[in-house]
Amino acid sequence: MTRSTSDCRPGEFELIEKLFAPLSRPLPGAFGLTDDVAVFSPHTGCEVVLKTDAIVEGVHFRKSDPARTIAKKVLRMNISDFAAKGAEPKAYLVSLSLPEWPDKAWLEEFARGLAEDQAEFDVGLAGGDTTRTPGAMTITVSMVGYVPQGALIRRNGARSGDAVYVTGTIGDAGGGLEQLATAASIPEGELVSRYLVPRPRLAFGQQLRGLASASLDVSDGLLADLGHIAKTSQVRIEVHVECVPLSPELVALRGHEIPAIVLAATSGDDYEISFTAPAASRSAIKQAAGETQTRVTEIGRVVAGEGIALLDSRGAEIPVSRKGYTHI
Amino acid sequence: MTRSTSDCRPGEFELIEKLFAPLSRPLPGAFGLTDDVAVFSPHTGCEVVLKTDAIVEGVHFRKSDPARTIAKKVLRMNISDFAAKGAEPKAYLVSLSLPEWPDKAWLEEFARGLAEDQAEFDVGLAGGDTTRTPGAMTITVSMVGYVPQGALIRRNGARSGDAVYVTGTIGDAGGGLEQLATAASIPEGELVSRYLVPRPRLAFGQQLRGLASASLDVSDGLLADLGHIAKTSQVRIEVHVECVPLSPELVALRGHEIPAIVLAATSGDDYEISFTAPAASRSAIKQAAGETQTRVTEIGRVVAGEGIALLDSRGAEIPVSRKGYTHI
Repeated sequence: MTRSTSDCRPGEFELIEKLFAPLSRPLPGAFGLTDDVAVFSPHTGCEVVLKTDAIVEGVHFRKSDPARTIAKKVLRMNISDFAAKGAEPKAYLVSLSLPEWPDKAWLEEFARGLAEDQAEFDVGLAGGDTTRTPGAMTITVSMVGYVPQGALIRRNGARSGDAVYVTGTIGDAGGGLEQLATAASIPEGELVSRYLVPRPRLAFGQQLRGLASASLDVSDGLLADLGHIAKTSQVRIEVHVECVPLSPELVALRGHEIPAIVLAATSGDDYEISFTAPAASRSAIKQAAGETQTRVTEIGRVVAGEGIALLDSRGAEIPVSRKGYTHI
Repeated sequence: MTRSTSDCRPGEFELIEKLFAPLSRPLPGAFGLTDDVAVFSPHTGCEVVLKTDAIVEGVHFRKSDPARTIAKKVLRMNISDFAAKGAEPKAYLVSLSLPEWPDKAWLEEFARGLAEDQAEFDVGLAGGDTTRTPGAMTITVSMVGYVPQGALIRRNGARSGDAVYVTGTIGDAGGGLEQLATAASIPEGELVSRYLVPRPRLAFGQQLRGLASASLDVSDGLLADLGHIAKTSQVRIEVHVECVPLSPELVALRGHEIPAIVLAATSGDDYEISFTAPAASRSAIKQAAGETQTRVTEIGRVVAGEGIALLDSRGAEIPVSRKGYTHI
């Protein structure tokens, strides 16, 4: 954490240094964050994978969200991309732009969230940057890791005839945000938990290497993200509305009529993996799901054409006007 | 540039996509920014080097600064670290948190600044993230590159008896900021230019491999940064005030009395390389300076003890209260 002394309040830099230095322990080449850069030796036969994602106060998280879950959210947003691409995260950089309000307890909880997730996902802090901001808190994480040479699961490999799958359940985070927006304090429960702390499917994603033809993580909304695959692969993707997997908690909140399913499929922040795969992969996908205890649902198919369509049980297209998630 | 559609004004995402995609051309593994992550194959015998640095509107740059030079500044701040460590930058990620005010022309100029510097420093855009912010614009760049195995020039290698050097001239950016602060429009001239657009010493830095015992780039201020080397290397560094290299332009602005030199040595944003080296390296350093047309000045020495001291011509310590640079 370099060149930050004068941007912070007295003692704040030292506090951040003290809190963050232990997070670099998994990486000898991070030098305990005492140098200007970090180094690591790449694995033989692997490509290096790069990703960055940022979250902004008032846009992607609320000031009142717990610091521990804010830390987990930004880290897991990046890890979720690695999961969907069949890659393995290793090291991350964190850039903090801090307004005046975070106190010592907030920073300690933020570091605790990072520490817990480092242990869970086997990654280490390689470095960072702390600056003052006159505006909203902004946290940028850049993640670096590996994938075996040529094994990255791209967006552009979907082919006509492939099946379309999604892990877990869809729309829970959107439901959680709805509950948070109307609650005085942070309500408990599965939906809010899903909004606050994504659950990247890292183990399952690595099993998809060689099985999936295209893959990404669902962040903008299921339909919007499958639209990215359709566009990049130059195909049409049809999703059957009754196949979209909803959790019992979301059904209890909104029911399971078509408007509720459409809302789920467009509300985003799911951090599940949606992917396409040829018929030949079907049994191996089922086995990988079993081995990693991952719920996987077949929700549609890839056909010739372009765009994304949500179909009702008679095969008629359901008009969807809101294909992307609007953050807070 | 993924998951950004809904965070931007209508058409803004498409504009950024259109402006940024060509910047990924040097990197086949960036897939034209059409995928979620980027990959690259590491060089054999090299370590991968990581660095991140962010700049914030109203802290590190002024809203009225040209978009083209803002882009260059954040890119070069990162490249400057690679230069000082003897490393070679290759790919970068850029995370943009945009308030309402940047218009199409601003974004075009920003992309132009990146494009010009990519050509100059031989780096490519590997990916990024664009979000809306209700606050100050924040731009985070994470840079990835190489250094030959074991060749990174650390902060912790300075030894008693080493000489202390700095490239170029010191304090110019601080002088430029002073001129900017009192000007109605952006004044021309060397000092302002130095403030707006750092000049990383990439070619010279790579020549320092195996010659320098410790090195960093001067961003917080010459004395503050040499203090980092002194602390990490567990030595004392003495700088001779009359040796600190000042440009004719800075001398014209402030004179060359001791208070002006102290201000130069504490004002930061220089992005020169300050390094230590044993006597055995002296002639090779001189040769490297000549080959890369780099001004290099010997400014002091490493001794036993701790801390950083600025000495007058009689060897007496000059009291310096302000060892770090306070951004705007």
